[in-house]
Amino acid sequence: MPAPSPTPSSSPAFRVAIDFAERSYSIEIGPGLIERAGTWASVPPSARALIVTNTTVAPLYAAKLQRSIASRHQAVQVVALPDGEEHKTWQTLNLIFDALLQQGCDRKTVIYALGGGVVGDMAGFAAACFMRGVPFVQVPTTLLAQVDSSVGGKTAINHPMGKNMIGAFYQPQFVVCDLDTLLTLPSRELSAGLAEVIKYGPIADLEFLAWIETNIEALMRRDAAALAHAVRRSCEIKARVVQQDERDTGLRATLNFGHTFGHAIEAGLGFGRWLHGEAVGCGMVMALHLSHRMGFIGEDFVARMTALIGQAGLPIVGPALGADRYLELMRVDKKAEAGEIKFVLIDKPGSAVVRGAPEALVREVIEHCCRRA
Amino acid sequence: MPAPSPTPSSSPAFRVAIDFAERSYSIEIGPGLIERAGTWASVPPSARALIVTNTTVAPLYAAKLQRSIASRHQAVQVVALPDGEEHKTWQTLNLIFDALLQQGCDRKTVIYALGGGVVGDMAGFAAACFMRGVPFVQVPTTLLAQVDSSVGGKTAINHPMGKNMIGAFYQPQFVVCDLDTLLTLPSRELSAGLAEVIKYGPIADLEFLAWIETNIEALMRRDAAALAHAVRRSCEIKARVVQQDERDTGLRATLNFGHTFGHAIEAGLGFGRWLHGEAVGCGMVMALHLSHRMGFIGEDFVARMTALIGQAGLPIVGPALGADRYLELMRVDKKAEAGEIKFVLIDKPGSAVVRGAPEALVREVIEHCCRRA
Repeated sequence: MPAPSPTPSSSPAFRVAIDFAERSYSIEIGPGLIERAGTWASVPPSARALIVTNTTVAPLYAAKLQRSIASRHQAVQVVALPDGEEHKTWQTLNLIFDALLQQGCDRKTVIYALGGGVVGDMAGFAAACFMRGVPFVQVPTTLLAQVDSSVGGKTAINHPMGKNMIGAFYQPQFVVCDLDTLLTLPSRELSAGLAEVIKYGPIADLEFLAWIETNIEALMRRDAAALAHAVRRSCEIKARVVQQDERDTGLRATLNFGHTFGHAIEAGLGFGRWLHGEAVGCGMVMALHLSHRMGFIGEDFVARMTALIGQAGLPIVGPALGADRYLELMRVDKKAEAGEIKFVLIDKPGSAVVRGAPEALVREVIEHCCRRA
Repeated sequence: MPAPSPTPSSSPAFRVAIDFAERSYSIEIGPGLIERAGTWASVPPSARALIVTNTTVAPLYAAKLQRSIASRHQAVQVVALPDGEEHKTWQTLNLIFDALLQQGCDRKTVIYALGGGVVGDMAGFAAACFMRGVPFVQVPTTLLAQVDSSVGGKTAINHPMGKNMIGAFYQPQFVVCDLDTLLTLPSRELSAGLAEVIKYGPIADLEFLAWIETNIEALMRRDAAALAHAVRRSCEIKARVVQQDERDTGLRATLNFGHTFGHAIEAGLGFGRWLHGEAVGCGMVMALHLSHRMGFIGEDFVARMTALIGQAGLPIVGPALGADRYLELMRVDKKAEAGEIKFVLIDKPGSAVVRGAPEALVREVIEHCCRRA
């Protein structure tokens, strides 16, 4: 259930500029942005637009967004996908293509993604592929999508054998993070988003990590100013990393901290059982233990991080998949090369590296961090 | 049936350089290239490679290619798709993703497309999407694929409502046009390829058009030197156009001469009934008549082109879909804007423009050029 919260209209609005060689865009962060028609002034006008959302978010915000962008487009349609990671499939993606073609959309049609990371990933991939690319605007309505999916242009769907295996790099024209949407977010989703906020600390910014530790209770009770700062700072850090490595060939992989174990948890349990952020939270605990066993960091940092992840309401013990199954699932990770699993490890607090690890150590970590089968 | 032909080993080898801002590559054109291991020296070495082909081409060339590239990769697998435009679908595309994941492929895995335009479009789109992009080598084995699909980086699959609606711009690392493969091509496929060769004349190069007219009989009997020149010159012309407009925002659309009517024929009859090149051949006749009725070109040029298209063994009378159905199908063409159909028209011999046209004239052309319903 949504927690009570101070009114967010007092929180400030921010703009984060994302500067890519091929294309640049900005992220607007603030309360009440969806309903303000002026928000959309930089979106290219077109005859048609399609709002891609899900059945949970549609009743809350689809009509508001439709009204708000009505002056930019002659006709705005809505397609509401089934909600949940287990629907991030070809079948669901085709619902978007069907809607686009049935409604006579063309190369200038603007696709708006209104929802969380799943909606953003699917709407973005559809925009990348429809007629080989149409304009795309992201309106993330979950904390996770605001702090993670809104920067970097990664879009994808899942394959039964692995997460985000089929996708494209495709930058949006514009991203609007309306902080008011966080007030309707279920608590579980808030925690899942905090996993990606917390992630930026150990890999890149100890000052931000200390700020999160100080403000974790304010974040959990949805204090507007705290959420605004968390979203802004997360976007800034991610933008700094991604701008240096748009195509994910090196540095950017460090943003996947917690994701190698996390993706295995998601795929192993079946997509949708744990939220992506929950799996990342637990995956960070496992990656921290592996970093410690590799001799990079002390137990104190592992304990400090585990405490914070727990305070954010995230699981810190992994499910009982068994070490063999974990290893099998991690071998199809996109970072793997010729069957060797690559992990994002903390080489010292505030800094991450991508490395292989001895299988015996990985097995020890799984034994230590997960429930028994 | 393949026609008898002089041995092609006497025909020269050519290299056409394709220069894009993002990426450059070369097209090798010559006889016996597939079997020569030295052909592949510029392909990035990797643990795994996947040859994507179809059930018709696989028995002819898959084992030869597999042997020839064995020194570049530790393991080379083959996936043979069902043959035909009607299989250019999500379902078939997923066979490629399944093969990639079942065989533990990773981001460095090289995908080889061995076959015609359909195989190239699907393997290329799979390469663009798998883990958001892996290296891709094209080995086109049809005349159409050698003169058209091998330049420009357009990849796509069909949607039941329209051709090539879902795809990506994705450049190959390298293209190998082995002219020997044209000797095993069914006659109908040879004619279909000649449609795209002929196309370059009226839109861009009257000298080449005159050369084709002089050599149409040599091309039809698969004279090796004639085919080599036709492939080389077609690639050069296409490269010149595409380099000026990689993202298909203007000039490049003129390469779609004959395709607006042609795509309607393909979709209207059901994909696979007519070959793509057959539909383009007939579509060019229709577009020439429309160009004439728009006052751009004289009847003499229409007659000259129609004769050449007929000599190439291509249909010059359209199927009886009815004008309403033609118009409906053309409205979902990717060049359409807000429901207005755009045609590639010859404004004077050797030059093309993209224009809307009065519906009454389009209906007259359909009445005049197609069988009665």
